[in-house]
Amino acid sequence: MTTSHDVQVSVLGLGAMGSALATALVKAGHATTVWNRSPGRTSDLVAQGATAAGTAGDAVRASRLVIACLLDHASVHEVLDPLSGELGGRTLVNVTTTTPAQARELAAWAADAGVTYLDGGIMAIPPMIGQPGSSVLYSGSATAFDQYKPLLDLWGASTYFGADPGLASLYDLALLAGMYVMFAGFMHGAAMLAPEGVSAGEFAAMAAPWLTAMTGAFGEFATVIDGGDYTVDGQQSLDFSDLGDIVAASADQGIDTGAVAMVQQLIRRQIDAGHGQEGFARIIESIKQPS
Amino acid sequence: MTTSHDVQVSVLGLGAMGSALATALVKAGHATTVWNRSPGRTSDLVAQGATAAGTAGDAVRASRLVIACLLDHASVHEVLDPLSGELGGRTLVNVTTTTPAQARELAAWAADAGVTYLDGGIMAIPPMIGQPGSSVLYSGSATAFDQYKPLLDLWGASTYFGADPGLASLYDLALLAGMYVMFAGFMHGAAMLAPEGVSAGEFAAMAAPWLTAMTGAFGEFATVIDGGDYTVDGQQSLDFSDLGDIVAASADQGIDTGAVAMVQQLIRRQIDAGHGQEGFARIIESIKQPS
Ligand SMILES: NC(=O)c1ccc[n+]([C@@H]2O[C@H](COP(=O)([O-])OP(=O)(O)OC[C@H]3O[C@@H](n4cnc5c(N)ncnc54)[C@H](OP(=O)(O)O)[C@@H]3O)[C@@H](O)[C@H]2O)c1
Ligand SMILES: NC(=O)c1ccc[n+]([C@@H]2O[C@H](COP(=O)([O-])OP(=O)(O)OC[C@H]3O[C@@H](n4cnc5c(N)ncnc54)[C@H](OP(=O)(O)O)[C@@H]3O)[C@@H](O)[C@H]2O)c1
Repeated sequence: MTTSHDVQVSVLGLGAMGSALATALVKAGHATTVWNRSPGRTSDLVAQGATAAGTAGDAVRASRLVIACLLDHASVHEVLDPLSGELGGRTLVNVTTTTPAQARELAAWAADAGVTYLDGGIMAIPPMIGQPGSSVLYSGSATAFDQYKPLLDLWGASTYFGADPGLASLYDLALLAGMYVMFAGFMHGAAMLAPEGVSAGEFAAMAAPWLTAMTGAFGEFATVIDGGDYTVDGQQSLDFSDLGDIVAASADQGIDTGAVAMVQQLIRRQIDAGHGQEGFARIIESIKQPS
Repeated sequence: MTTSHDVQVSVLGLGAMGSALATALVKAGHATTVWNRSPGRTSDLVAQGATAAGTAGDAVRASRLVIACLLDHASVHEVLDPLSGELGGRTLVNVTTTTPAQARELAAWAADAGVTYLDGGIMAIPPMIGQPGSSVLYSGSATAFDQYKPLLDLWGASTYFGADPGLASLYDLALLAGMYVMFAGFMHGAAMLAPEGVSAGEFAAMAAPWLTAMTGAFGEFATVIDGGDYTVDGQQSLDFSDLGDIVAASADQGIDTGAVAMVQQLIRRQIDAGHGQEGFARIIESIKQPS
């Protein structure tokens, strides 16, 4: 088994995130080669013990494990297309943010070039790398994940979702979707209270523990959804979940009702289809089947 | 000061919630009188030591503190309008769910009748009453809240928001708005992953800790919002927060994009107004000013 500090690794891209990833590798004692398109971003890392490569090709040739942390899908192709020959036989861990379709396209490109491909989605901001709470999602080559897990764990908790290279990205986007929608819900509540002189800070102090407690419902919803029977006892019904009062109170406060109207619509579509007596978890059917 | 068990109290309405509230009072040793429109719901409580009143009037006359836990605003008027004379000089704590406007109307009605009025919004389900995690929001008479707080605390953590009798209800609806919108976000993420064979349970296991961690951002958003300057450093910009990839990936999965499109629209309205470089917290302005 590969012990962590034995691995030679190259990092392409030293933006805010690439620098954080490379720093964690250097600190753990890995022989780390770094490259960035614009010069001047390598000096801090070199001072810590990294080796600067003059070209991306030099960086690729220096290590069997190559990390790409560039801006986007297009920049990964721009840097790596000319190097497909050199990359052959090596492992590419691409933690650049891409869509699932882009990750699958890159994996196919890598397969053609004889490159072992692992896609990563980073659920953290740069200062969190290597700290508790940092999490990185992976999919693609199981061999690469298993071989390099001790190294990947230096960045945060590493979770592998399967061979489909698009799955980590899809999970990433699904978690971000949940986050952004929750943020909109928080903002909506704060906006409801603002006309009464309640500060966003006062609301945040109530909303953070409240919503944290309410994440406890996800597991129960999931049991019902995965069980495939929305009529099981003990659930709050869709009829009971009518958001009419919340929408009306929002309108009374003079604010945009879009956030709560969106949920109301998901509920109403199920009620209109005759499922009002069934559980709230059934709103997922409104999402699974677009109107 | 009133010690908790000295208080005589009457509870009107023994549905699922009223019964839970009355049970907590009886267990704490209060002389508790109970009434319900339909007979047969008092027996369990009487067995535990409560006194059953034959009429709502008898229940009101039995105690200086009267709790109403009925179905809705209309049922509170139906029960209490004929008893306004008897209620005069007493304290009414109404924990029936109402809108802010309905709570203010009831407070005005109570003031006319010489009744001290405290409005409550229960953030719990019946089995949680008296357990950790149960919370009840109050507004209206500060005197009533201060005098009866030890008794009210038997149901859960009691928070007082001020003299405006509509404020507890508004807070209640704002927290529920946040909860329902978060639930829709969870369902959206689960629906994104479902076509790949990821179960809702697998997603819930990732989403619950992730969204819990992300509630940590509320305080920072609030600081920016309350500070009134969305240009302060260190924030994620609106331009960076474009949800195009999430919307596109959702559409690729064949699901309804409503939940994420709603957030995207809040973001876009601020970008279109020229604020793309400012912080994400600015989406609250899209909610505060309907388009
Ligand atoms: N920052 C975060 O909070 C965060 C969180 C999760 C995921 N990510 C993802 O991590 C990746 C990097 O993010 P970052 O924060 O490090 O971004 P950044 O600070 O903007 O850095 C972008 C990096 O990409 C390079 N680059 C851009 N276009 C290039 C091209 N055509 N050819 C070669 N190099 C190119 C830049 O090189 P130059 O220096 O030459 O411009 C720079 O090294 C992104 O995909 C991002 O979505 C970031
Ligand atoms: N259950 C919860 O999880 C929950 C959570 C937070 C807040 N609340 C609020 O608490 C209140 C009570 O809820 P619940 O769960 O106890 O409801 P419930 O089980 O349906 O009970 C409703 C109660 O209201 C009475 N009632 C209805 N219409 C009446 C009328 N016209 N005149 C006199 N009494 C009437 C019913 O009497 P009968 O027995 O004669 O029908 C019964 O006692 C509601 O406002 C609800 O929104 C409930």
